[in-house]
Amino acid sequence: MKITLEKDVMENNDRAAEFNRQLFQKTGTLVINIMSSPGSGKTTILEKTAAALSDQFRIAVIEGDIATERDADRVRRAGVRAVQIATEGECHLDPRMIAKVLPEIDLDHTDILFIENVGNLVCPSEFDLGQNHRIVVLSTPEGNDKIPKYPLMFHVTELALINKIDLIPYVSFDMNKAREDLHAINPSSRIMPVSAKNGEGFDAWLDWVKKAYRDCLKQ
Amino acid sequence: MKITLEKDVMENNDRAAEFNRQLFQKTGTLVINIMSSPGSGKTTILEKTAAALSDQFRIAVIEGDIATERDADRVRRAGVRAVQIATEGECHLDPRMIAKVLPEIDLDHTDILFIENVGNLVCPSEFDLGQNHRIVVLSTPEGNDKIPKYPLMFHVTELALINKIDLIPYVSFDMNKAREDLHAINPSSRIMPVSAKNGEGFDAWLDWVKKAYRDCLKQ
Repeated sequence: MKITLEKDVMENNDRAAEFNRQLFQKTGTLVINIMSSPGSGKTTILEKTAAALSDQFRIAVIEGDIATERDADRVRRAGVRAVQIATEGECHLDPRMIAKVLPEIDLDHTDILFIENVGNLVCPSEFDLGQNHRIVVLSTPEGNDKIPKYPLMFHVTELALINKIDLIPYVSFDMNKAREDLHAINPSSRIMPVSAKNGEGFDAWLDWVKKAYRDCLKQ
Repeated sequence: MKITLEKDVMENNDRAAEFNRQLFQKTGTLVINIMSSPGSGKTTILEKTAAALSDQFRIAVIEGDIATERDADRVRRAGVRAVQIATEGECHLDPRMIAKVLPEIDLDHTDILFIENVGNLVCPSEFDLGQNHRIVVLSTPEGNDKIPKYPLMFHVTELALINKIDLIPYVSFDMNKAREDLHAINPSSRIMPVSAKNGEGFDAWLDWVKKAYRDCLKQ
């Protein structure tokens, strides 16, 4: 009985994700689902990304959190539209939660929609939200061993932003080992070292987003 | 149907937790369930704790991870017995997983059993494992805002070890705000700042463990 129920729930999720995907395609909106542990710097990355790109693109953000409106407030201060989803205890966003808030987004006038998932390296990796791209942020204080320890997250994403490289002198993080472990789990993913704090490596990330937007329009 | 099923699952969990609790009490074993985000330093804390206490106490560790035997190997090198549970995708330990590996622990000859839960600030907070104490580790690079953002975790624990205080000069972490936010969620919990790296604050933590052991024997 439990298995049937789970299968049913996941099939409903897949349908909801497909619904979102078609809507995004129709409005020509690039959608990026960003996942990570709590505190890896997703919101800071979004603040800096929004600040750097908002003169060229119409940007919106969906913030997923267990509780509080803090992250939406932070990105709003960076000048972008933001909608907060409080999951009330759920450890991930699911595609129906996204579908429910899309009317607040005005997709017709949104070029890029970032979805900041709940801080969690496990559960969010199991849910397709209908996005174009799934990426993961891993911060250097967490350690490079998180890649083999949370393999599904690194398997379903196509880019691993290694954030807080400004802290590398003070923590143990082996970038070569990270590349090697990521390659073993997902040869088509890649590592991109950045510091949202001092901007190091950020140009490569902004270029990645711009290219993703051009590719999205070609579809 | 889903609600009935969930209720049923949670009731089974409560029974299993009670079974574990009675066993721990019978053997006079202090059991501490340690939870946190990935990469906050739980394993390093356990390595250092085991090294500091293993001449006075017979210590064992259960390591919970999605995948890999890495953490058990690390604490074994620190000289303690360790059993690894690979949850195969589950985002938390549950009391039946614990009960299943207890025969490998030799509780009769174990004074203190540490359970290192899966790195996750959400799911593990929902599961009683039958432990005497639940504590949470939050590392300074994660930011003090994780306390209000993950309230259940800080509600069910009675001690918040704030780890990596050696990184405070390089990150934004407001210890007073952390105290204030924790007090609002759980007035009976407290903050204890430590650095597993340089040992700062570690004596207070070791004293806490020793006192917990004495209290456990009095029961």
